[in-house]
Amino acid sequence: MSYSIGIDLGGTNIVVGIVDDSCKIIDRERVKTRAPRSAESLVDTMADCIGSLLMRRGLSVTDLRSIGIGVPGVVDLETGLLLHATNLFLKRVDFPALLRERYPDVPVYIANDADCAVFGEYLAGAAHNYKSVLMLTLGTGVGGGFVFENKIFRGATGFGIEPGHMAVETGGHITCSCGQWDCLEVYASIRGLKRMTCEALVANDDSVLLDLVSADGSSFNARHIFAAASDGDKIAKEILDRFVHYLAIGIRNLVVLYRPHVILLGGGISHAGDVLLEPLRARVALTTVSGDVLPPPPIERSNLGNDAGVIGAAMLYSEGQSK
Amino acid sequence: MSYSIGIDLGGTNIVVGIVDDSCKIIDRERVKTRAPRSAESLVDTMADCIGSLLMRRGLSVTDLRSIGIGVPGVVDLETGLLLHATNLFLKRVDFPALLRERYPDVPVYIANDADCAVFGEYLAGAAHNYKSVLMLTLGTGVGGGFVFENKIFRGATGFGIEPGHMAVETGGHITCSCGQWDCLEVYASIRGLKRMTCEALVANDDSVLLDLVSADGSSFNARHIFAAASDGDKIAKEILDRFVHYLAIGIRNLVVLYRPHVILLGGGISHAGDVLLEPLRARVALTTVSGDVLPPPPIERSNLGNDAGVIGAAMLYSEGQSK
Repeated sequence: MSYSIGIDLGGTNIVVGIVDDSCKIIDRERVKTRAPRSAESLVDTMADCIGSLLMRRGLSVTDLRSIGIGVPGVVDLETGLLLHATNLFLKRVDFPALLRERYPDVPVYIANDADCAVFGEYLAGAAHNYKSVLMLTLGTGVGGGFVFENKIFRGATGFGIEPGHMAVETGGHITCSCGQWDCLEVYASIRGLKRMTCEALVANDDSVLLDLVSADGSSFNARHIFAAASDGDKIAKEILDRFVHYLAIGIRNLVVLYRPHVILLGGGISHAGDVLLEPLRARVALTTVSGDVLPPPPIERSNLGNDAGVIGAAMLYSEGQSK
Repeated sequence: MSYSIGIDLGGTNIVVGIVDDSCKIIDRERVKTRAPRSAESLVDTMADCIGSLLMRRGLSVTDLRSIGIGVPGVVDLETGLLLHATNLFLKRVDFPALLRERYPDVPVYIANDADCAVFGEYLAGAAHNYKSVLMLTLGTGVGGGFVFENKIFRGATGFGIEPGHMAVETGGHITCSCGQWDCLEVYASIRGLKRMTCEALVANDDSVLLDLVSADGSSFNARHIFAAASDGDKIAKEILDRFVHYLAIGIRNLVVLYRPHVILLGGGISHAGDVLLEPLRARVALTTVSGDVLPPPPIERSNLGNDAGVIGAAMLYSEGQSK
């Protein structure tokens, strides 16, 4: 048995796991990121975690097949540079080089964190029986990635894709964090749900949501909407309907442009389960028509949660190999 | 020097060309398709053309490296079957098998015709200096394709992509020929221009377009719009502005999802040239923001015209090889 280290470098936490050949995390460390910090200091922390894990499992560096790191930003496939990571306040960092200084005999791989999560789900999660997968992570924002032919698709220029930043509205009214307008993320995220809820409640005061959401929206939680919609609240159902409308447009575009074998939904919002999935599947079936020759792919929930990113990072060495 | 046959099977014409190793068409035959006809009868015609070409150039079948055929429909990469071709009234036809019966020693390749055209432009046309290309063909409808890593991208399931059928509007009001609503094709095509022109002229009678377009739109030509817009006609400029708006949304989505090195525009509408390209480039620069890290790719016109499909089909054998 050989082992790989998977590192999920997030804006809030750094998770470091030891992953075995069967894609199982056999042990992990989780520490606060405490950004802004220098890349060197972040690598110190990663190395501390790796040291603790190896010691705890009675392993040494020579037992490691690879180290993989998933980072929250734009990675240049060719150079391995993290070009830009807003949440970490970092630009043009060479994490593989910094890790190689400490582990000169271990191959180091790097990829975008959303891509690592999709790769993890593809190898060991909800997509492991499919030949390709398009995943959308519906959280504060909307991330996602596409794996086919056993590889992460990073776009032709190798800088990664951004399904959360395609346009799904045309009014050009709502600015996204990316600087564009009316991205999928503007609607199909927790932030989008929050905004649509505030808009709806300003116009309507006959909803159980008013009891759940304070005037400034600060106590809002996506679960409130889904629970109220399940209970038949008219306003919550309208918000959910808008959410499904935009998400279905995004999925329709992803289907005609990527033709994935399965679509996975991850992130906090995906925990809503059937109250979201059932109307979404119905809408996609209605709007994504390509004749009986090409039915739309199934839509499922991801099932590895936060482990997906660690597993995907650890398994980056296997890209291009059949699973 | 060796030669390949490229066949462009269209709804109106069948063009058969002999293409040399440097991607040049050294001779060609063009005959009417006269659909509906059986696949066998179509292959008879193709074989007649191949025979005439070989005789005229003093070549024999043993000089052929391959035969490639581009077809106007959905092709299953795995089986080589043409699953569905609306314009030809054909379903589930095995053209490679029918051609192999006649040319048992020549490898036969098949692909969608739009994909062949992009592959031709990639190898020998406006994209030949780029490592990847996304092309949109703006004609009666909107076709297109994506070539990267020296291969046509056919989507993960191998049935081809349909950039003309992503959504660029959300009202859900206008039905597309594909059965979906508000596809790029609904706006960024000759059909779309025609409809937007009729809508504009119903509401406004102060336009030089009225002199150019008869009441039922039957004498309409896309060139009228571009010419009138160049001359400063207010209504024509508004129609062009809408056209550019929707096309820019499509391009923005293609950029974040494929990250091509260049975007090519082909088809009849692309002949408009700078009156279309300049506002389009300005709009894409304004709306496709990914920070200074990832500027949008250049937007150019394709330059092989109808030859692209023949060259691309003839060169299908070279997919995956570096150019």
